[in-house]
Amino acid sequence: MSSDQLKLYESSGSPNSRRVRIFLAEKGISASRIPVDLGSREQFSEAYVRINPRRVVPTLVLADGTGIGEVPAILRYLEEVYPGTPLLGTSPKDKALVTMWERRMELEGFAAVMDTVRNAAAGLKGRAISGPHDYAQIPELVARGRQRIADFYADLEVRFTEVPFVAGDRFSVADITAIVTTDFAAKALGLPIPETNVASQRWYALVAARPSMAA
Amino acid sequence: MSSDQLKLYESSGSPNSRRVRIFLAEKGISASRIPVDLGSREQFSEAYVRINPRRVVPTLVLADGTGIGEVPAILRYLEEVYPGTPLLGTSPKDKALVTMWERRMELEGFAAVMDTVRNAAAGLKGRAISGPHDYAQIPELVARGRQRIADFYADLEVRFTEVPFVAGDRFSVADITAIVTTDFAAKALGLPIPETNVASQRWYALVAARPSMAA
Repeated sequence: MSSDQLKLYESSGSPNSRRVRIFLAEKGISASRIPVDLGSREQFSEAYVRINPRRVVPTLVLADGTGIGEVPAILRYLEEVYPGTPLLGTSPKDKALVTMWERRMELEGFAAVMDTVRNAAAGLKGRAISGPHDYAQIPELVARGRQRIADFYADLEVRFTEVPFVAGDRFSVADITAIVTTDFAAKALGLPIPETNVASQRWYALVAARPSMAA
Repeated sequence: MSSDQLKLYESSGSPNSRRVRIFLAEKGISASRIPVDLGSREQFSEAYVRINPRRVVPTLVLADGTGIGEVPAILRYLEEVYPGTPLLGTSPKDKALVTMWERRMELEGFAAVMDTVRNAAAGLKGRAISGPHDYAQIPELVARGRQRIADFYADLEVRFTEVPFVAGDRFSVADITAIVTTDFAAKALGLPIPETNVASQRWYALVAARPSMAA
Protein backbone atom coordinates (compact mmCIF):
# COMPACT_ATOMS: atom_id res chain seq x y z
CA MET A 1 0.00 0.00 0.00
CA SER A 2 1.46 3.33 -0.96
CA SER A 3 0.66 6.79 0.23
CA ASP A 4 2.48 9.71 -1.29
CA GLN A 5 0.26 11.81 0.91
CA LEU A 6 1.85 10.82 4.21
CA LYS A 7 5.07 12.44 5.38
CA LEU A 8 6.98 11.09 8.35
CA TYR A 9 9.40 13.54 9.96
CA GLU A 10 11.85 11.39 11.84
CA SER A 11 15.42 10.55 12.74
CA SER A 12 17.22 7.31 11.89
CA GLY A 13 18.73 7.01 15.39
CA SER A 14 15.55 7.88 17.31
CA PRO A 15 13.88 4.89 18.99
CA ASN A 16 10.47 6.60 18.83
CA SER A 17 10.94 7.04 15.08
CA ARG A 18 11.86 3.37 14.78
CA ARG A 19 8.59 2.34 16.45
CA VAL A 20 6.69 4.06 13.63
CA ARG A 21 9.00 2.78 10.86
CA ILE A 22 8.51 -0.83 11.99
CA PHE A 23 4.74 -0.32 12.24
CA LEU A 24 4.61 1.08 8.69
CA ALA A 25 6.74 -1.81 7.39
CA GLU A 26 4.57 -4.44 9.11
CA LYS A 27 1.46 -2.96 7.51
CA GLY A 28 3.09 -2.38 4.13
CA ILE A 29 2.41 1.35 4.10
CA SER A 30 4.95 3.64 2.46
CA ALA A 31 5.32 7.19 3.68
CA SER A 32 7.82 9.84 2.60
CA ARG A 33 10.54 9.92 5.22
CA ILE A 34 11.87 13.37 5.98
CA PRO A 35 14.96 13.37 8.19
CA VAL A 36 15.19 15.77 11.14
CA ASP A 37 18.82 16.20 12.22
CA LEU A 38 18.77 15.97 16.00
CA GLY A 39 22.57 16.34 16.06
CA SER A 40 22.31 19.90 14.79
CA ARG A 41 19.19 20.50 16.94
CA GLU A 42 16.96 20.82 13.88
CA GLN A 43 13.94 19.87 16.03
CA PHE A 44 14.23 23.36 17.59
CA SER A 45 14.21 25.14 14.22
CA GLU A 46 11.31 27.49 13.44
CA ALA A 47 10.29 25.30 10.53
CA TYR A 48 10.03 22.15 12.64
CA VAL A 49 8.39 23.85 15.61
CA ARG A 50 5.55 24.78 13.25
CA ILE A 51 5.18 21.06 12.44
CA ASN A 52 5.52 19.84 16.03
CA PRO A 53 5.41 22.50 18.78
CA ARG A 54 6.68 19.89 21.25
CA ARG A 55 9.96 19.76 19.29
CA VAL A 56 10.18 15.98 19.23
CA VAL A 57 10.33 13.35 16.51
CA PRO A 58 8.51 11.63 14.93
CA THR A 59 5.61 13.61 13.46
CA LEU A 60 3.23 12.26 10.85
CA VAL A 61 1.97 14.98 8.51
CA LEU A 62 -1.24 14.25 6.61
CA ALA A 63 -2.17 15.45 3.11
CA ASP A 64 -4.15 18.35 4.60
CA GLY A 65 -1.11 19.50 6.59
CA THR A 66 -2.28 18.22 9.99
CA GLY A 67 0.69 17.24 12.15
CA ILE A 68 0.21 14.25 14.43
CA GLY A 69 2.80 13.86 17.18
CA GLU A 70 3.22 11.15 19.84
CA VAL A 71 3.79 7.57 18.72
CA PRO A 72 0.52 6.04 20.02
CA ALA A 73 -1.44 8.80 18.24
CA ILE A 74 0.41 8.19 14.97
CA LEU A 75 -0.14 4.45 15.21
CA ARG A 76 -3.81 4.92 16.05
CA TYR A 77 -4.25 7.00 12.89
CA LEU A 78 -2.46 4.47 10.71
CA GLU A 79 -4.46 1.54 12.13
CA GLU A 80 -7.75 3.38 11.52
CA VAL A 81 -6.94 4.30 7.93
CA TYR A 82 -5.15 1.05 7.04
CA PRO A 83 -7.03 -1.62 9.02
CA GLY A 84 -5.37 -4.53 7.16
CA THR A 85 -2.82 -6.49 9.25
CA PRO A 86 -4.17 -5.20 12.58
CA LEU A 87 -1.46 -4.51 15.15
CA LEU A 88 -3.54 -2.78 17.86
CA GLY A 89 -5.91 -5.70 18.45
CA THR A 90 -9.19 -6.83 16.89
CA SER A 91 -12.11 -7.24 19.34
CA PRO A 92 -12.78 -4.57 22.01
CA LYS A 93 -11.24 -6.83 24.67
CA ASP A 94 -8.23 -7.58 22.50
CA LYS A 95 -7.72 -3.89 21.72
CA ALA A 96 -7.79 -3.11 25.44
CA LEU A 97 -5.29 -5.84 26.30
CA VAL A 98 -2.91 -4.81 23.51
CA THR A 99 -3.16 -1.20 24.71
CA MET A 100 -2.42 -2.32 28.27
CA TRP A 101 0.60 -4.39 27.31
CA GLU A 102 2.01 -1.80 24.93
CA ARG A 103 1.71 0.78 27.67
CA ARG A 104 3.42 -1.49 30.18
CA MET A 105 6.30 -1.97 27.74
CA GLU A 106 6.51 1.78 27.39
CA LEU A 107 6.23 2.75 31.07
CA GLU A 108 8.33 -0.07 32.53
CA GLY A 109 10.80 -0.51 29.67
CA PHE A 110 11.01 2.27 27.11
CA ALA A 111 10.61 5.15 29.57
CA ALA A 112 13.17 3.63 31.94
CA VAL A 113 15.73 3.33 29.14
CA MET A 114 15.10 6.87 27.89
CA ASP A 115 15.28 8.30 31.41
CA THR A 116 18.59 6.55 32.02
CA VAL A 117 20.10 7.71 28.74
CA ARG A 118 18.87 11.30 29.02
CA ASN A 119 20.13 11.76 32.57
CA ALA A 120 23.53 10.26 31.74
CA ALA A 121 24.56 11.39 28.25
CA ALA A 122 27.07 14.25 28.17
CA GLY A 123 25.44 15.55 24.99
CA LEU A 124 22.07 15.87 26.74
CA LYS A 125 23.18 18.07 29.63
CA GLY A 126 20.24 20.36 30.49
CA ARG A 127 17.98 18.23 28.29
CA ALA A 128 16.97 15.50 30.75
CA ILE A 129 13.41 15.50 29.42
CA SER A 130 12.54 15.84 25.73
CA GLY A 131 10.26 18.68 24.71
CA PRO A 132 10.28 22.47 24.72
CA HIS A 133 11.67 22.97 28.25
CA ASP A 134 15.17 22.48 29.62
CA TYR A 135 15.67 20.38 32.75
CA ALA A 136 18.97 19.59 34.43
CA GLN A 137 20.15 16.00 34.60
CA ILE A 138 19.83 14.21 37.96
CA PRO A 139 22.63 11.65 38.29
CA GLU A 140 20.67 9.50 40.81
CA LEU A 141 18.22 8.73 38.01
CA VAL A 142 20.90 6.81 36.16
CA ALA A 143 21.30 4.21 38.92
CA ARG A 144 17.54 4.07 39.44
CA GLY A 145 17.05 3.66 35.70
CA ARG A 146 19.49 0.75 35.49
CA GLN A 147 17.61 -0.98 38.31
CA ARG A 148 14.31 -0.35 36.53
CA ILE A 149 15.70 -1.92 33.35
CA ALA A 150 16.87 -4.98 35.31
CA ASP A 151 13.38 -5.28 36.83
CA PHE A 152 11.81 -4.86 33.39
CA TYR A 153 13.89 -7.70 31.96
CA ALA A 154 13.02 -9.95 34.92
CA ASP A 155 9.28 -9.27 34.54
CA LEU A 156 9.47 -9.78 30.77
CA GLU A 157 11.11 -13.18 31.29
CA VAL A 158 8.20 -14.27 33.49
CA ARG A 159 5.76 -13.10 30.85
CA PHE A 160 7.51 -15.05 28.08
CA THR A 161 7.39 -18.28 30.06
CA GLU A 162 3.59 -17.90 29.84
CA VAL A 163 2.90 -16.58 26.31
CA PRO A 164 4.86 -16.33 23.03
CA PHE A 165 4.27 -12.60 22.43
CA VAL A 166 3.99 -9.64 24.79
CA ALA A 167 0.21 -9.28 24.47
CA GLY A 168 -0.47 -13.02 24.21
CA ASP A 169 -0.72 -15.32 21.22
CA ARG A 170 -0.10 -12.87 18.42
CA PHE A 171 2.51 -10.34 17.36
CA SER A 172 1.31 -6.79 18.11
CA VAL A 173 2.44 -3.24 18.68
CA ALA A 174 3.46 -4.32 22.20
CA ASP A 175 6.23 -6.45 20.66
CA ILE A 176 7.39 -3.48 18.58
CA THR A 177 7.73 -1.26 21.65
CA ALA A 178 9.45 -4.07 23.55
CA ILE A 179 12.05 -4.86 20.90
CA VAL A 180 12.82 -1.19 20.20
CA THR A 181 13.34 -0.83 23.96
CA THR A 182 15.71 -3.80 24.26
CA ASP A 183 17.68 -2.84 21.15
CA PHE A 184 18.13 0.73 22.39
CA ALA A 185 19.09 -0.44 25.90
CA ALA A 186 21.74 -2.66 24.30
CA LYS A 187 23.04 0.05 21.97
CA ALA A 188 22.93 3.11 24.21
CA LEU A 189 23.58 1.54 27.62
CA GLY A 190 25.21 -1.81 26.93
CA LEU A 191 22.23 -3.50 28.59
CA PRO A 192 20.83 -6.21 26.28
CA ILE A 193 18.42 -8.88 27.48
CA PRO A 194 20.47 -11.11 29.84
CA GLU A 195 21.75 -14.31 28.17
CA THR A 196 20.19 -16.39 30.94
CA ASN A 197 16.68 -15.11 30.17
CA VAL A 198 15.95 -18.05 27.89
CA ALA A 199 12.29 -17.35 27.17
CA SER A 200 13.06 -13.71 26.34
CA GLN A 201 15.90 -14.75 24.06
CA ARG A 202 13.54 -17.09 22.18
CA TRP A 203 11.04 -14.21 21.78
CA TYR A 204 13.81 -11.84 20.70
CA ALA A 205 15.12 -14.19 18.01
CA LEU A 206 11.60 -14.72 16.65
CA VAL A 207 10.73 -11.02 16.49
CA ALA A 208 14.14 -9.76 15.36
CA ALA A 209 13.90 -12.03 12.30
CA ARG A 210 10.87 -10.20 10.94
CA PRO A 211 11.81 -8.16 7.83
CA SER A 212 10.17 -5.04 9.34
CA MET A 213 12.89 -4.85 12.00
CA ALA A 214 15.40 -3.49 9.47
CA ALA A 215 13.21 -0.38 9.13
CA MET B 1 -26.78 2.46 30.29
CA SER B 2 -26.20 -0.13 32.98
CA SER B 3 -23.81 -2.99 33.13
CA ASP B 4 -23.90 -5.28 36.12
CA GLN B 5 -21.19 -7.19 34.34
CA LEU B 6 -18.45 -4.58 34.74
CA LYS B 7 -16.51 -4.29 37.97
CA LEU B 8 -14.19 -1.36 38.61
CA TYR B 9 -11.57 -1.94 41.30
CA GLU B 10 -10.55 1.51 42.40
CA SER B 11 -9.79 3.95 45.19
CA SER B 12 -11.72 7.14 45.91
CA GLY B 13 -8.53 9.20 46.42
CA SER B 14 -6.66 7.84 43.39
CA PRO B 15 -6.44 10.30 40.47
CA ASN B 16 -6.15 7.43 37.97
CA SER B 17 -9.37 5.96 39.38
CA ARG B 18 -11.04 9.34 39.04
CA ARG B 19 -10.16 9.49 35.33
CA VAL B 20 -12.19 6.31 34.80
CA ARG B 21 -15.07 7.38 37.08
CA ILE B 22 -15.50 10.65 35.16
CA PHE B 23 -15.35 8.80 31.83
CA LEU B 24 -18.05 6.35 32.97
CA ALA B 25 -20.24 9.22 34.22
CA GLU B 26 -19.87 11.17 30.96
CA LYS B 27 -20.96 8.12 28.98
CA GLY B 28 -23.71 7.14 31.41
CA ILE B 29 -22.29 3.67 32.05
CA SER B 30 -22.72 2.18 35.50
CA ALA B 31 -20.15 -0.29 36.79
CA SER B 32 -19.90 -1.91 40.22
CA ARG B 33 -17.27 -0.01 42.16
CA ILE B 34 -15.12 -2.17 44.38
CA PRO B 35 -12.86 -0.17 46.71
CA VAL B 36 -9.21 -1.13 47.09
CA ASP B 37 -7.78 0.31 50.31
CA LEU B 38 -4.40 1.80 49.35
CA GLY B 39 -3.93 3.01 52.94
CA SER B 40 -3.69 -0.57 54.19
CA ARG B 41 -1.71 -1.59 51.07
CA GLU B 42 -4.54 -3.79 49.82
CA GLN B 43 -3.18 -3.46 46.28
CA PHE B 44 -0.34 -5.77 47.35
CA SER B 45 -2.70 -8.45 48.70
CA GLU B 46 -2.68 -11.87 47.02
CA ALA B 47 -6.31 -11.41 45.97
CA TYR B 48 -5.64 -8.10 44.21
CA VAL B 49 -2.37 -9.19 42.61
CA ARG B 50 -4.36 -11.93 40.86
CA ILE B 51 -6.61 -9.18 39.44
CA ASN B 52 -3.80 -6.78 38.55
CA PRO B 53 -0.23 -8.14 38.73
CA ARG B 54 1.07 -4.58 38.49
CA ARG B 55 -0.52 -3.85 41.88
CA VAL B 56 -2.06 -0.54 40.81
CA VAL B 57 -5.60 0.82 40.65
CA PRO B 58 -7.86 1.02 38.76
CA THR B 59 -8.63 -2.32 37.10
CA LEU B 60 -11.74 -3.01 35.03
CA VAL B 61 -12.87 -6.62 35.32
CA LEU B 62 -15.13 -7.93 32.55
CA ALA B 63 -17.91 -10.50 32.88
CA ASP B 64 -15.55 -13.27 31.71
CA GLY B 65 -13.06 -12.36 34.45
CA THR B 66 -10.54 -10.57 32.21
CA GLY B 67 -8.76 -7.81 34.11
CA ILE B 68 -7.87 -4.68 32.15
CA GLY B 69 -5.33 -2.39 33.79
CA GLU B 70 -3.94 0.99 32.66
CA VAL B 71 -6.35 3.89 32.22
CA PRO B 72 -6.01 4.34 28.42
CA ALA B 73 -6.67 0.61 27.97
CA ILE B 74 -9.78 0.73 30.18
CA LEU B 75 -11.09 3.79 28.34
CA ARG B 76 -10.40 2.22 24.96
CA TYR B 77 -12.49 -0.81 25.96
CA LEU B 78 -15.37 1.32 27.22
CA GLU B 79 -15.38 3.51 24.09
CA GLU B 80 -15.44 0.43 21.82
CA VAL B 81 -18.30 -1.26 23.66
CA TYR B 82 -20.28 1.92 24.38
CA PRO B 83 -19.68 4.13 21.34
CA GLY B 84 -22.39 6.64 22.29
CA THR B 85 -21.09 10.03 23.49
CA PRO B 86 -17.63 9.51 21.95
CA LEU B 87 -14.81 10.87 24.10
CA LEU B 88 -11.80 9.49 22.18
CA GLY B 89 -12.59 11.25 18.90
CA THR B 90 -14.68 10.38 15.86
CA SER B 91 -12.83 10.39 12.50
CA PRO B 92 -9.37 8.75 12.22
CA LYS B 93 -7.73 12.19 12.28
CA ASP B 94 -9.80 13.30 15.25
CA LYS B 95 -9.00 10.08 17.15
CA ALA B 96 -5.31 10.65 16.53
CA LEU B 97 -5.42 14.28 17.69
CA VAL B 98 -7.39 13.40 20.83
CA THR B 99 -4.87 10.62 21.56
CA MET B 100 -2.01 13.09 21.07
CA TRP B 101 -3.49 15.73 23.35
CA GLU B 102 -4.54 13.27 26.04
CA ARG B 103 -1.03 11.89 26.04
CA ARG B 104 0.50 15.35 26.29
CA MET B 105 -1.72 16.09 29.29
CA GLU B 106 -0.53 12.86 30.82
CA LEU B 107 3.20 13.19 30.09
CA GLU B 108 3.56 16.91 30.74
CA GLY B 109 0.95 17.30 33.48
CA PHE B 110 -0.27 14.15 35.17
CA ALA B 111 3.11 12.37 35.24
CA ALA B 112 4.85 15.50 36.54
CA VAL B 113 2.36 15.81 39.41
CA MET B 114 2.58 12.12 40.32
CA ASP B 115 6.39 12.18 40.17
CA THR B 116 6.48 15.19 42.48
CA VAL B 117 4.05 13.68 44.97
CA ARG B 118 5.64 10.23 45.01
CA ASN B 119 9.17 11.54 45.53
CA ALA B 120 8.06 13.90 48.32
CA ALA B 121 5.39 12.16 50.41
CA ALA B 122 6.65 10.69 53.69
CA GLY B 123 4.14 7.87 53.34
CA LEU B 124 5.62 6.85 49.99
CA LYS B 125 9.22 6.39 51.11
CA GLY B 126 10.70 3.56 49.02
CA ARG B 127 7.68 3.73 46.70
CA ALA B 128 8.75 6.49 44.30
CA ILE B 129 7.29 4.61 41.34
CA SER B 130 3.98 2.72 41.50
CA GLY B 131 4.01 -0.95 40.59
CA PRO B 132 5.53 -4.17 41.87
CA HIS B 133 9.04 -2.84 42.54
CA ASP B 134 10.36 -0.56 45.28
CA TYR B 135 12.44 2.49 44.34
CA ALA B 136 13.90 5.04 46.73
CA GLN B 137 12.71 8.64 46.55
CA ILE B 138 15.05 11.17 44.90
CA PRO B 139 14.54 14.59 46.53
CA GLU B 140 15.84 16.48 43.45
CA LEU B 141 12.80 15.22 41.55
CA VAL B 142 10.53 17.30 43.77
CA ALA B 143 12.06 20.61 42.64
CA ARG B 144 12.20 19.42 39.04
CA GLY B 145 8.58 18.30 39.29
CA ARG B 146 7.42 21.68 40.57
CA GLN B 147 9.16 23.35 37.64
CA ARG B 148 7.54 20.90 35.23
CA ILE B 149 4.10 21.70 36.66
CA ALA B 150 4.76 25.45 36.26
CA ASP B 151 5.79 24.84 32.63
CA PHE B 152 2.69 22.68 32.10
CA TYR B 153 0.42 25.44 33.35
CA ALA B 154 2.15 28.02 31.13
CA ASP B 155 1.81 25.81 28.04
CA LEU B 156 -1.82 25.05 28.88
CA GLU B 157 -2.57 28.76 29.09
CA VAL B 158 -1.21 29.30 25.57
CA ARG B 159 -3.35 26.41 24.32
CA PHE B 160 -6.53 27.83 25.86
CA THR B 161 -6.00 31.21 24.23
CA GLU B 162 -6.34 29.30 20.93
CA VAL B 163 -9.08 26.71 21.53
CA PRO B 164 -11.85 26.16 24.13
CA PHE B 165 -10.96 22.55 24.99
CA VAL B 166 -7.64 20.70 25.22
CA ALA B 167 -8.06 18.78 21.96
CA GLY B 168 -9.83 21.64 20.12
CA ASP B 169 -13.51 22.46 19.77
CA ARG B 170 -15.05 19.66 21.79
CA PHE B 171 -14.83 18.20 25.27
CA SER B 172 -12.82 14.94 25.20
CA VAL B 173 -10.79 12.57 27.33
CA ALA B 174 -7.94 15.08 27.12
CA ASP B 175 -9.98 17.47 29.28
CA ILE B 176 -10.63 14.70 31.78
CA THR B 177 -6.91 13.99 32.18
CA ALA B 178 -6.16 17.72 32.38
CA ILE B 179 -8.70 18.53 35.08
CA VAL B 180 -7.84 15.47 37.18
CA THR B 181 -4.22 16.65 36.94
CA THR B 182 -4.95 20.22 38.03
CA ASP B 183 -7.27 19.13 40.86
CA PHE B 184 -4.68 16.69 42.19
CA ALA B 185 -1.88 19.27 41.91
CA ALA B 186 -4.02 21.66 43.93
CA LYS B 187 -4.98 19.09 46.56
CA ALA B 188 -1.72 17.20 47.00
CA LEU B 189 0.82 19.96 46.31
CA GLY B 190 -1.03 23.23 46.80
CA LEU B 191 -0.40 24.04 43.13
CA PRO B 192 -3.69 25.00 41.46
CA ILE B 193 -3.82 26.73 38.08
CA PRO B 194 -2.41 30.25 38.67
CA GLU B 195 -5.11 32.93 39.12
CA THR B 196 -3.52 35.01 36.38
CA ASN B 197 -3.97 32.26 33.76
CA VAL B 198 -7.28 33.70 32.62
CA ALA B 199 -7.92 31.40 29.67
CA SER B 200 -7.18 28.32 31.78
CA GLN B 201 -9.47 29.57 34.54
CA ARG B 202 -12.29 29.96 32.01
CA TRP B 203 -11.71 26.39 30.79
CA TYR B 204 -11.55 25.11 34.35
CA ALA B 205 -14.85 26.71 35.35
CA LEU B 206 -16.55 25.30 32.26
CA VAL B 207 -15.28 21.76 32.74
CA ALA B 208 -15.57 21.65 36.54
CA ALA B 209 -19.30 22.46 36.22
CA ARG B 210 -20.03 19.20 34.37
CA PRO B 211 -22.00 16.78 36.60
CA SER B 212 -19.49 13.99 35.82
CA MET B 213 -16.80 15.82 37.79
CA ALA B 214 -18.37 14.79 41.09
CA ALA B 215 -17.63 11.15 40.24
